[in-house]
Amino acid sequence: MPASNAAKAAPARDEKAIEAAIRALAAAFGNRLVTSQAVREQHGNFLTWIPNQPPDAVVFPQDAAEVQQIVRICAEHRVPVIPFGAGSSLEGQINAPHGGVSVDFRDMNKILAVHAEDLDCVVQPGVTRKMLNEHLRDQGLFFPIDPGADASMGGMASTRASGTNAVRYGTMKDNVLSMKVVLANGELISTARRAKKSSSGLNLTQLMIGAEGTLGVITELTLKLQGIPEMIGAGVCPFPSVEAACNATIITIQSGIPVARIELLDALQVKACNAYSKLTLPETPMLFVEFHGTEASVAEQSQRFGEIAVDFGGGPFDWATKAEDRTRLWQARHDAYWAGTQLRPGSKALATDVCVPISRLAECVTETQGDIAEFGLVAPIVGHVGDGNFHVSLMLDMDDPDEVKRAKTFLDRLAARALEMDGTCTGEHGVGQGKIKYLNAEHGLGAVAAMRAVKQALDPLGILNPGKMLPTV
Amino acid sequence: MPASNAAKAAPARDEKAIEAAIRALAAAFGNRLVTSQAVREQHGNFLTWIPNQPPDAVVFPQDAAEVQQIVRICAEHRVPVIPFGAGSSLEGQINAPHGGVSVDFRDMNKILAVHAEDLDCVVQPGVTRKMLNEHLRDQGLFFPIDPGADASMGGMASTRASGTNAVRYGTMKDNVLSMKVVLANGELISTARRAKKSSSGLNLTQLMIGAEGTLGVITELTLKLQGIPEMIGAGVCPFPSVEAACNATIITIQSGIPVARIELLDALQVKACNAYSKLTLPETPMLFVEFHGTEASVAEQSQRFGEIAVDFGGGPFDWATKAEDRTRLWQARHDAYWAGTQLRPGSKALATDVCVPISRLAECVTETQGDIAEFGLVAPIVGHVGDGNFHVSLMLDMDDPDEVKRAKTFLDRLAARALEMDGTCTGEHGVGQGKIKYLNAEHGLGAVAAMRAVKQALDPLGILNPGKMLPTV
Repeated sequence: MPASNAAKAAPARDEKAIEAAIRALAAAFGNRLVTSQAVREQHGNFLTWIPNQPPDAVVFPQDAAEVQQIVRICAEHRVPVIPFGAGSSLEGQINAPHGGVSVDFRDMNKILAVHAEDLDCVVQPGVTRKMLNEHLRDQGLFFPIDPGADASMGGMASTRASGTNAVRYGTMKDNVLSMKVVLANGELISTARRAKKSSSGLNLTQLMIGAEGTLGVITELTLKLQGIPEMIGAGVCPFPSVEAACNATIITIQSGIPVARIELLDALQVKACNAYSKLTLPETPMLFVEFHGTEASVAEQSQRFGEIAVDFGGGPFDWATKAEDRTRLWQARHDAYWAGTQLRPGSKALATDVCVPISRLAECVTETQGDIAEFGLVAPIVGHVGDGNFHVSLMLDMDDPDEVKRAKTFLDRLAARALEMDGTCTGEHGVGQGKIKYLNAEHGLGAVAAMRAVKQALDPLGILNPGKMLPTV
Repeated sequence: MPASNAAKAAPARDEKAIEAAIRALAAAFGNRLVTSQAVREQHGNFLTWIPNQPPDAVVFPQDAAEVQQIVRICAEHRVPVIPFGAGSSLEGQINAPHGGVSVDFRDMNKILAVHAEDLDCVVQPGVTRKMLNEHLRDQGLFFPIDPGADASMGGMASTRASGTNAVRYGTMKDNVLSMKVVLANGELISTARRAKKSSSGLNLTQLMIGAEGTLGVITELTLKLQGIPEMIGAGVCPFPSVEAACNATIITIQSGIPVARIELLDALQVKACNAYSKLTLPETPMLFVEFHGTEASVAEQSQRFGEIAVDFGGGPFDWATKAEDRTRLWQARHDAYWAGTQLRPGSKALATDVCVPISRLAECVTETQGDIAEFGLVAPIVGHVGDGNFHVSLMLDMDDPDEVKRAKTFLDRLAARALEMDGTCTGEHGVGQGKIKYLNAEHGLGAVAAMRAVKQALDPLGILNPGKMLPTV
């Protein structure tokens, strides 16, 4: 890499510049520029143990032209710009470690078009997953990416989010056709056309997805949609061990059964869900599965899955075709995080995730459970096992410095284990501030230098979400 | 964009530098460095009307370290490096307009690993599609991307290729997990780990896919695989018009029928295939379709498709479950290009492609047929219509300058029409030299400037495949 791409830290905090930028923004945005401490704190990280680092101001744009204006003002004063969606990110992506202006997309939450024939739609970045699916339901369509939280589409694209449906429908990477993005120089670009595929030019769409706001600010997204399946069937299946559940998953995927969701809960998580969601599941590793298709194909898929489960000592496969049973089941799965927090009332929950090749998944989960026991932690596990991706939710007593220290060591070991298995330190939460330290180990210095060169090329002043994702050395 | 990203033409041809680079390469590679005119010409464009622009030398590396050595020598002397796979690209991607060294991956054609449990494999870039599928067959696996030609994996990744199976399995963008790439500075990087998904860092994999060798030289690919379906069913279905066939396709996709292939042939193409492949199809627009799944699901899919076809005045749906009938059908489809050339013996065939939102496809094909008639051209059409992508094969009398001129106008109008419909000037052939002139119109000046900034950041000397994809202004 050329010398100009050497370690480039974020600009040092310049109080005068920040004041000047806020003055200019206030003049332009009136009461849509807010500097109250409460609002600022709401725009820093609050879900995890990463400290809350509020921005200096929050601005609420209403269209792309206003976002351009914000970026231009901030560029003029060399002040950081931090995009903000629903605030549900888990690795400190919304924090303002160097101060700056949070751009909250609350008012940019319109669904601009639904092209049913093309199975796509055009939305503003503040549209959330639930808003979108509510809007689409009458047309028999849905957007499949479901990270659990009612996240915003801009945020989901920025962290390359996925969730329970990814095993069948892919991640945000696979479901964004195009975006409009304001670059650091204030220019508004389209990353692609609305055609389903293209071989034209560098893939700016994919460059922006997962960039966590470090390369541009998303102002519009064109998303792929799916038809709501004729039939949805779901069920739960207990297994004697995590390994058996993982192996059944591998064979299910390998057999080409187009499972829509296949979620592992370890015994501790099942116990937590039983208590929280008033279920009576056997407290052993469990797969929650869902099939989409016609009536005949769902019946066939579930029968084949049931046979595979039996081959691995699992079962009985308890089948729920009734919508209310299914809803209850998936509500319990979605509440797994909250259920976990009740295992240890008063604790701080901290969710992390890694992803490994599926052949290594059983080993990775089992070794991780060993670490949890060794470190004396309370930490249920849930996994999007069809993708080799799993979450550990640590329930921490933050007043116990030794426990906090053990938790940090545990997290480092978890990331190292995933990397050692040719996996990634994050399957879907992103890097933010929390995982910057793993980047060099995961990608190698040469690849990180290439990322930094791209960042430097597109944001030479370093104003876009500084202090996130890329290590400075 | 900063001033350094302003229009940057390729380095002017420097005979002394080229001689020095070739001397250094000859010293390192002996008889694996070839400068004979015949071999050089074989490494320039030969399939289309784009002139053959041979490199100054061709080198045949055997591993990534040798590719690094080649790139370093070329960087030292500021000499262009042009990666070469199977030579089947259609837009001049392999040409050497500024001279330089073609890096031919003929000897890097090993399948390094097949991870059946993870449904992935690791290959060198010279492995072709047919070699790979031959190797995988015994394990019940296949790699679905099929651009027609027996292209190399490195080349297919570089042009973001797709083909007949893309409607179900996606394009190269969706089927490459990771790559090893030699950057312009000679560093070898991995673009990602082998995990099925990741939210870690900028997506270098997707940045390199479709970059046509302008950002790095691919030395290894980790590819997603699919299980060979239990059952494959295929058939042909005539329609009264292109519009009816397109509308039947839209409803098929919208209904969630997981069709594996759905290919349109216009009446002229059917006529050509009948003559070339000894078929007796009615000479009317025709869909070739294929379904993958279990026996029951294939039967269900084909029945539902047949019903949709009837709704649009199509049918009868002529069904071929026997492998030999299916092979004959798809062989005819794959031979469509050669069949087309026989419509006008002695003509030069020129294949182009565009892709539009599927709702605009019928209109786009119909207007294009109107142009073909208006311009007096012979040009059958085949389309991967499930993706909104279609090809026009012009059969040209290159000795008729007026016809050549009309063909050029036709191509400009075709690209403009696709863009006007929010489509792309190329769905799968790539930009190369032939479509550079459409880039600004497709992406806008701001987006092209961003692409150029990325190029400049990763290849500051401009040695990687100069004169391709990005306009200099």
